[in-house]
Amino acid sequence: MTTSPSAVAAPPAAAALQGPIGLVGLGLIGGSLGLDLQRCGHQVRALVHRAGTAERARQRGLAQVVDTDAAVLAGCRLVVLALPLDRLLDPSPALVAALPAEAVVTDVGSVKEPVLRRWRGLHPRFVASHPMAGSAEAGVEAGRADLFRGRPWVATPAAGGDGPALAAVQALAAAVGARWLTCDAAAHDRAVALISHLPVLTSAALLLAAEQGAAGGPPEWDLPRLTRALASSGFADTTRVGGGNPELGVLMARCNREALAEALTGYRHCLEQLEQRLAAADWEGLEGELSHCRDLRPEFL
Amino acid sequence: MTTSPSAVAAPPAAAALQGPIGLVGLGLIGGSLGLDLQRCGHQVRALVHRAGTAERARQRGLAQVVDTDAAVLAGCRLVVLALPLDRLLDPSPALVAALPAEAVVTDVGSVKEPVLRRWRGLHPRFVASHPMAGSAEAGVEAGRADLFRGRPWVATPAAGGDGPALAAVQALAAAVGARWLTCDAAAHDRAVALISHLPVLTSAALLLAAEQGAAGGPPEWDLPRLTRALASSGFADTTRVGGGNPELGVLMARCNREALAEALTGYRHCLEQLEQRLAAADWEGLEGELSHCRDLRPEFL
Repeated sequence: MTTSPSAVAAPPAAAALQGPIGLVGLGLIGGSLGLDLQRCGHQVRALVHRAGTAERARQRGLAQVVDTDAAVLAGCRLVVLALPLDRLLDPSPALVAALPAEAVVTDVGSVKEPVLRRWRGLHPRFVASHPMAGSAEAGVEAGRADLFRGRPWVATPAAGGDGPALAAVQALAAAVGARWLTCDAAAHDRAVALISHLPVLTSAALLLAAEQGAAGGPPEWDLPRLTRALASSGFADTTRVGGGNPELGVLMARCNREALAEALTGYRHCLEQLEQRLAAADWEGLEGELSHCRDLRPEFL
Repeated sequence: MTTSPSAVAAPPAAAALQGPIGLVGLGLIGGSLGLDLQRCGHQVRALVHRAGTAERARQRGLAQVVDTDAAVLAGCRLVVLALPLDRLLDPSPALVAALPAEAVVTDVGSVKEPVLRRWRGLHPRFVASHPMAGSAEAGVEAGRADLFRGRPWVATPAAGGDGPALAAVQALAAAVGARWLTCDAAAHDRAVALISHLPVLTSAALLLAAEQGAAGGPPEWDLPRLTRALASSGFADTTRVGGGNPELGVLMARCNREALAEALTGYRHCLEQLEQRLAAADWEGLEGELSHCRDLRPEFL
């Protein structure tokens, strides 16, 4: 697997998306896909776990057909597994059995190597992919139109893989307005460790440090109250991902443990460099680092 | 100094703000004060450093009178030193000499102990204060109406201080719609180290770690490009303050060095705890920490 990240300009033929599209799960990602795909004129059939979810999904119009029976996927030419990582890595036998053998199957998980390892043996036409779109919302109420517009949708195809299957997933990404790119699965996991999973832990640590640091002062300072009263938009922004969904945070840590541990080691080193400049009163050096950061950030936006 | 943080409900009599108000500096804070105070019917006289700034400030209507001669402050009953920390801690003798002895003088610096130490001997009616309002903008173009509305404005009065002087600064904060509170200067500096200055360094370290971590992979991965392409809103939010004005970052580090070093030590400890849970595959423990963070964050918003 040596595919380097490549953006593809021309959208592939819509032919790759003919026939009904199956969605497994109608949370934020699945529900948003359902809304966008129906708007493009596609037939969408969805499988959900609970009858209550199915009922609410029907009310919200997230798919034309919603069922708790995996047989709903029969006849689908493309199936998107919009499941949390734990359920994706440990799928029910009924789900695996219900996936049509000729259908292209893809997922939306935020870690790709373990998913690819697991699904390579489960379905002949599996393509690992990851739309980089998120929100603080989750569940059947979270799906919304245009979630993917302008966002990256990255696929990590196996070497010597199924070209038409990859083209179908690319057509799906194009249909919802996402920016398509492909890369190696290990490269993906390393990249998201740095820009998506590491920030969750550094941001969580900031909340913990503010709480614990504020617990320390003399009682008459009432630092816990003062610290909370003075926190402003900078603190809110910096702690947003650290104060997010704990289950998602644990799943990404579990599934991308090695790359995240490596990212943390690198982060600790960078922070210690800044700390040493503070300790040494090396203001020129600190200004150099912060100027570099100011110039660096726009490259990531 | 044992004043605990206290919010005061009733705005003090506008009488405390009678007579012309002087502003020293017309950057983001000074310019915004000028716009708001004039709108409330106050006479505003401003001192700026450069003739070009004075010209532009007049065009923008940031004050009724703008001059580069400190004599413009004559007759002011309240003067706000809206200067960067370095110039505030090393004021020109001409400025100090021009401050009317009977005027109340306050500042807007983000660190209070060194300011109080310096200014206690320079002016008999000095009150240290800090409006918690910011923006990415700086300079004479940055000032805007309503910057302070609903934001905290904290004063750190010296023990046995000048009550009427404090009331004048409180009236100023009320005039621009800020939420008034008072606390000990050392408590303020500790609190802002945790919720304002520490985030600058943890956020800067994240940018550096992403850059350095991405430089590491096999060349065919093109990780530098991939990492930048995949970074999304979470990374943008978490790195905003770390990619901000380097000069401001260095000033706050220089002026609040001890509290910031202490905050960094605490932060490193919290991050190491999370890192150890990852290394030990203690997913239950990690979920506990992240759940605590999710519950903690709203207390700071």
